[in-house]
Amino acid sequence: MLKGAISSLVIHRMPRYYRFLGDLQDEGVTRISSKQLADRMNLTASQIRQDFNCFGGFGQQGYGYNVDVLREEIAHILGLDRSMPAILIGVGNIGRAVVKNVNFEAKGFTLIGMFDEKESVVGQVVKNTPVRHISTLDEFCRENKPAAAILCLPKAATKPIAQQLINLGVNAFLNFSSYDIYLDFPDAIVENVHFEDGLMTLSYRLHEKENN
Amino acid sequence: MLKGAISSLVIHRMPRYYRFLGDLQDEGVTRISSKQLADRMNLTASQIRQDFNCFGGFGQQGYGYNVDVLREEIAHILGLDRSMPAILIGVGNIGRAVVKNVNFEAKGFTLIGMFDEKESVVGQVVKNTPVRHISTLDEFCRENKPAAAILCLPKAATKPIAQQLINLGVNAFLNFSSYDIYLDFPDAIVENVHFEDGLMTLSYRLHEKENN
Repeated sequence: MLKGAISSLVIHRMPRYYRFLGDLQDEGVTRISSKQLADRMNLTASQIRQDFNCFGGFGQQGYGYNVDVLREEIAHILGLDRSMPAILIGVGNIGRAVVKNVNFEAKGFTLIGMFDEKESVVGQVVKNTPVRHISTLDEFCRENKPAAAILCLPKAATKPIAQQLINLGVNAFLNFSSYDIYLDFPDAIVENVHFEDGLMTLSYRLHEKENN
Repeated sequence: MLKGAISSLVIHRMPRYYRFLGDLQDEGVTRISSKQLADRMNLTASQIRQDFNCFGGFGQQGYGYNVDVLREEIAHILGLDRSMPAILIGVGNIGRAVVKNVNFEAKGFTLIGMFDEKESVVGQVVKNTPVRHISTLDEFCRENKPAAAILCLPKAATKPIAQQLINLGVNAFLNFSSYDIYLDFPDAIVENVHFEDGLMTLSYRLHEKENN
């Protein structure tokens, strides 16, 4: 696999390829050309070939892609065939939605712990994982060495927890708050999920349509 | 405002600019250069100038940007100073997380109705909005003409509801499922929120770091 020069845009398209190839498997499709995949994904065939070439290329001239093989290759690139220990902090509405809807095992992670500060939530068991008190976070991290943390916290609470986790050696975050972790911790690995950005883009596109 | 040729990438950066400018306002910053904004957002100054030029440009040579004015301009471009009626379908964990965490009014929408099929959920009031039975959706849409729907449904339930809504004249969606609305309804306006994509990208970046 080539390293270093792969753009963030290519990397962010890989989960999408993975999802689409899963849909194709569900439909019983075993082989697909870059043109067909492009049409389906609203991309161009050359973009798809370029994306895959970043990782050495997977197609065969005149044959296209074997769906199963391609999906497995992408799973490997994404590390989905391995498993990293992850913790989740903040078991409110978003935290619960994540735990109940995300298949961690299929996405490269094992959820090994959940934390909250609310006494009413601590001790609850969500999807087989008990919620621990946030005061036990240091001890838990030193013993269990999570590789990543899913932060389902309000904006103001996210910075101190990110700082605490980085001090404990955890520096990869899936961040659901609008606090920008990069600003204070430029070396952290961060993926953000911003509900509201999607809504704003939708608003733009509705008015764009209206105006045209 | 220029129309038609603005790329999806530029459009998707606009909510991010809007968020960052809000942070600057909170910090009391009133003026910023494209270079300073770029450093903060992990972009280049020329990319920022290009992005804003798509909408006619907002800066003043040698002065930079007035934070308040720029944020207001972007709010206008995104339609946040207007309000479109929206409904939410599926009041499970994700639906609740959205209703409780998203400030619709500040993002260009008014939440006018919520729907679910579960008798135990129907009649509940979440953030001042009662949950209605999904069987009343047709009547409600004909009377209230929502412009957009937030779909917080499992994958299998999303397609028939999208079809029903499109038949009712609602064709803009914020979609939380992994069902790809574009495939069957290419004319719909769709923004997707994929929790799991972020987790997969995080997995990639953790292994990339590990491998280097």
